[in-house]
Amino acid sequence: MYKEKLIDCHQRIESYIHNTPILTSQLINNIVDADIFFKCENFQKMGAFKMRGATNAIFQLTKEQKQKGVVTHSSGNFAQALSLAAKSLNIKAFIVMPSSATQVKKDAVKEYGGNIIECESTLKARQITTQQIEDETGATFIHPSNDINVIIGQGTACIELLKEQPNLEYVFTPVGGGGLIAGTALAAHYFGKNCKVIGGEPFEVDDAYRSLLSSTIEFNSTTNTVADGLKTHLGDVNFPIILKYVDQIIRVTEKEIIDAMRLIWERMKIIIEPSSAVAVAAIIKGKERLKGKRIGVIISGGNVDLSQLPF
Amino acid sequence: MYKEKLIDCHQRIESYIHNTPILTSQLINNIVDADIFFKCENFQKMGAFKMRGATNAIFQLTKEQKQKGVVTHSSGNFAQALSLAAKSLNIKAFIVMPSSATQVKKDAVKEYGGNIIECESTLKARQITTQQIEDETGATFIHPSNDINVIIGQGTACIELLKEQPNLEYVFTPVGGGGLIAGTALAAHYFGKNCKVIGGEPFEVDDAYRSLLSSTIEFNSTTNTVADGLKTHLGDVNFPIILKYVDQIIRVTEKEIIDAMRLIWERMKIIIEPSSAVAVAAIIKGKERLKGKRIGVIISGGNVDLSQLPF
Repeated sequence: MYKEKLIDCHQRIESYIHNTPILTSQLINNIVDADIFFKCENFQKMGAFKMRGATNAIFQLTKEQKQKGVVTHSSGNFAQALSLAAKSLNIKAFIVMPSSATQVKKDAVKEYGGNIIECESTLKARQITTQQIEDETGATFIHPSNDINVIIGQGTACIELLKEQPNLEYVFTPVGGGGLIAGTALAAHYFGKNCKVIGGEPFEVDDAYRSLLSSTIEFNSTTNTVADGLKTHLGDVNFPIILKYVDQIIRVTEKEIIDAMRLIWERMKIIIEPSSAVAVAAIIKGKERLKGKRIGVIISGGNVDLSQLPF
Repeated sequence: MYKEKLIDCHQRIESYIHNTPILTSQLINNIVDADIFFKCENFQKMGAFKMRGATNAIFQLTKEQKQKGVVTHSSGNFAQALSLAAKSLNIKAFIVMPSSATQVKKDAVKEYGGNIIECESTLKARQITTQQIEDETGATFIHPSNDINVIIGQGTACIELLKEQPNLEYVFTPVGGGGLIAGTALAAHYFGKNCKVIGGEPFEVDDAYRSLLSSTIEFNSTTNTVADGLKTHLGDVNFPIILKYVDQIIRVTEKEIIDAMRLIWERMKIIIEPSSAVAVAAIIKGKERLKGKRIGVIISGGNVDLSQLPF
């Protein structure tokens, strides 16, 4: 069932997204002693893979739902992705954001045509405000990561990666809300040849690591990480997929994340966000096991506030 | 004569350099209202186009010269390029650098196998030290920009650009010592279809702009620009080529350079150095004339000290 969903989804969204380039670096290959293929979703529309899931989710709406628009709560890449995807398909997007979100993030959402509704910076305020919007406008709620259409959409990056590099033995992704890694794990399962999926996660928000150990969705009491896209926890839709198809989660320190980010910026001359650097850091950390292997990595995004760099 | 030299050179160095990717951006196209093709020499080996000229110059040495090595004075990309090119061809490189050069730059040269000889930070000290090295070691001096083999080598980036985009009406480059723009102008003349070459230059070091006006090589009394690769002046080998084949030099302010650099980083997610941003800034500044045109730009390099960003 997932296999057909993935194929259909890719055909459906293909002309609305970029088939992003796959880059390599001799220097990084030498560091890890392996062949690494970087699927550059930082070059995706609006700068992140989230464009894929958002576009697919909107396409799945009925005609009536489309007329009433969509709503989500996010202060990050999904807010921009849903705004832009909605705009491309000529429907309304309501974005619930904490009023504490930076002006840069608010501006980006506005630029892509999203309607921002500000709320207090608590989980409860966010839920209440989102519900209000649903009630008032009839807009359909789309969760940034715990929605099967979003998950399937995110998996299409790995489909493209495996089309060009069918013999990958591993694919790495960062783990935040779980949408990317769940979609990637499905794609690797159905389109790879015994291709294992490994997640990278900051020690500071290692809920997914603990969730795999306990087979229950775990939460983070604090979220003190530079990887601001990974502060959320898994959900009931993506967790069973992750539990079944993800091989391992490798945890990395804040220093390892920042070092990996700087390494990629300096050596590959591409801008990747801290969350993407988490996956690169996990590869470097796990390199003993990876010697001589063919490894893919989803560079999830490149949206960075240049006036707030960690180095 | 130049046409054959360009063809021979490209065949000679092809397997020692990257045929760098050509990127596009819908957003930047919209800003300029034109189709712009970015030839990404920031993805070149050692991070800049200088690898091309250095490799070509070394290949032209006799067997005897190769045994004695090469020497240059540079604290920038050519120092790294000559070191790496020499290393690839298994010969010695002596790099004369002012002792005031940053540790980052010294480390980069050492990493690529260059032997650094430090001198005082004056033109005279540099010349005397370089001459001493030539006398002591018999090494051949290779100028970073005023050497026909270097110029021809730099022109190969434009050959590759025109192979993929044969109908370009303009190609933009930054102008520093004049090697890149001279080589590009030759390549555009012989391989383009009435393709004009325009240089971008900071107001703060506008020697090339003034040289084209006076038909004499002009110098800079001060060099107060963020584009640290462009502080040098033209030479007697590249100037006649520039005078004959370059259409125009557009000058840009420091603010325009920094804004263009930030625009490319934020929107294209690639790291370009300030000198490359000068060419982009010149396109944006000249956009009235460029409406609807097909424009190439040589993104000269991506070597930036991340702890010294201008924003």
